[in-house]
Amino acid sequence: MKLLDLYAKLKKDINVIEKELERSIDVDHPLLRDASLHLLKAGGKRIRPVFVLLGGKFGTYDLERIKHVAVPLELIHMASLVHDDVIDDASTRRGQLTVRSKWDNRIAMYTGDYIFAKALSIVTKLANPAIHQIMSKALVEMSIGEMEQIRFFYHTEQTVRDYLLRIKRKTALLLAISCQLGAMAAEAPDRTAKLLYKFGYFTGMAYQVRDDLLDLCGTEKELGKPPGSDIKQGNITIPVIFALQNPELRPDLLQELARIQACDGQTDVSRFLDMIRQSEGISRAEALASKYIDKAIGVLQELPDIQAKKDLVGIAHFVGNRTY
Amino acid sequence: MKLLDLYAKLKKDINVIEKELERSIDVDHPLLRDASLHLLKAGGKRIRPVFVLLGGKFGTYDLERIKHVAVPLELIHMASLVHDDVIDDASTRRGQLTVRSKWDNRIAMYTGDYIFAKALSIVTKLANPAIHQIMSKALVEMSIGEMEQIRFFYHTEQTVRDYLLRIKRKTALLLAISCQLGAMAAEAPDRTAKLLYKFGYFTGMAYQVRDDLLDLCGTEKELGKPPGSDIKQGNITIPVIFALQNPELRPDLLQELARIQACDGQTDVSRFLDMIRQSEGISRAEALASKYIDKAIGVLQELPDIQAKKDLVGIAHFVGNRTY
Repeated sequence: MKLLDLYAKLKKDINVIEKELERSIDVDHPLLRDASLHLLKAGGKRIRPVFVLLGGKFGTYDLERIKHVAVPLELIHMASLVHDDVIDDASTRRGQLTVRSKWDNRIAMYTGDYIFAKALSIVTKLANPAIHQIMSKALVEMSIGEMEQIRFFYHTEQTVRDYLLRIKRKTALLLAISCQLGAMAAEAPDRTAKLLYKFGYFTGMAYQVRDDLLDLCGTEKELGKPPGSDIKQGNITIPVIFALQNPELRPDLLQELARIQACDGQTDVSRFLDMIRQSEGISRAEALASKYIDKAIGVLQELPDIQAKKDLVGIAHFVGNRTY
Repeated sequence: MKLLDLYAKLKKDINVIEKELERSIDVDHPLLRDASLHLLKAGGKRIRPVFVLLGGKFGTYDLERIKHVAVPLELIHMASLVHDDVIDDASTRRGQLTVRSKWDNRIAMYTGDYIFAKALSIVTKLANPAIHQIMSKALVEMSIGEMEQIRFFYHTEQTVRDYLLRIKRKTALLLAISCQLGAMAAEAPDRTAKLLYKFGYFTGMAYQVRDDLLDLCGTEKELGKPPGSDIKQGNITIPVIFALQNPELRPDLLQELARIQACDGQTDVSRFLDMIRQSEGISRAEALASKYIDKAIGVLQELPDIQAKKDLVGIAHFVGNRTY
């Protein structure tokens, strides 16, 4: 598998980032340290640091500088997860207890606040105000996105555009600035950083569309949780929006959605899943993800043919085809 | 009243800050805007912006620059209040419904996240990385302080030092950097900014000690809420810590505290209040507040005798004598 090769190649640097992540939350407060460390140890693919490292290869690669971007971006991701878990009443994530279920919602909220603050404080070690600005603006957008998600719960009249703006804020933006800030920390040319932003953005959009597809089409074994958890939370994703556009399917689907909402998601959703799986919502969403991947690879053309470019193409293909 | 005179004198500039505060949260998201505006309109003394403005008078006073510090510092204060209200299950603050009771805890959490992010993004308009660093580091300390507060609920073995470190993080630090960053945004000399930091710190410590005294000694009419709300939350403040040091009072007081804790604060606390009011905890805490005020005024000596210095002395005296 190509992706594993990539991680193997970057392993030494990823290990440095991992150590720095641990060091960054080694606070002299037992509860805060335990909760943060629990969150860190729950793992994840560290895709944001990987994007930062690869972005850095397009400039003067200096891990000592680049880490001051890679660590905060992963911390921001972690902090947003812990706040999400409060909202979603989630008791597990990636098979591990969440902070809010191992401790409580208060601890989860303050752990998130602490990690957000820590992220922004680490990046200030780079004396480049433009980097600080990009990161804090992304945080503003992300927090608006969180609210948008609540606003659009069970909102059957939302448009494709509503959805796309939401996943941009929720997922794509942080991946976009990971590529961009990696390049900026390595003092790559402005144009390079801009193109890498676009690559991260398009890949992130594809990633979220595929993630939303998986929640509808995957099996419990593949997902590590039952399918349909999005709709149980009220989260209407793009295959559903596409399916609702079919006038023959729409009335039945609206009725089923109203039923699920009336139970506040505490109901069997297999009929809903069957309806979506048999609709053209799936193939249209798959086509959308592929379109984003093509765009992502397209923007890389202009960049020099270094190994990092090949690695980014490999990641994009992987995201386009991911089945878990 | 001297303090009103000061506000009258700064009124034009405070109004500019007030407008900027409104503009800063004028986000294209109805719920987020309403919640943020609700929070803003609940008011407050805007003491952080006042400290920023006065700090700025020691350098090249330019409101267009200084506002990029004054607005974020007030926003950080607002965001920390909205997250505090989630933790405290508070339904009103300053006689207004809190965000969490008008909407819900989820909205309150994300409104806080949004306002924190917005604060950090506004300050990046000043291309001075040192200012960004001071602000984000203060946020880290503040979030540790929030957790400390939870950890020390009903913790009768805590020391004076535990308490002082906690109120430093909770209150004094943000006031300290308000003075300091006002000076830095106005490019005042480093030494001036450092002294102003100390002034804000000492005044902030006195402010919180007096605040904690008021909660024990004030009447419901003066406070706008019944006295004893700190202990009902489990928050053991300095007069109580001092009172516990009295070996004759200690056993009874411990018993009373255990009783309150067993009821999770949902009980009459008048006996507890009487015990504290009759103890030397009150006079010792008053003496501590006065000592901080003396120190605050002391550090100003070295600064030039401009009007802003007189205003800061006036504020310090006001804080030292505040009875509401």
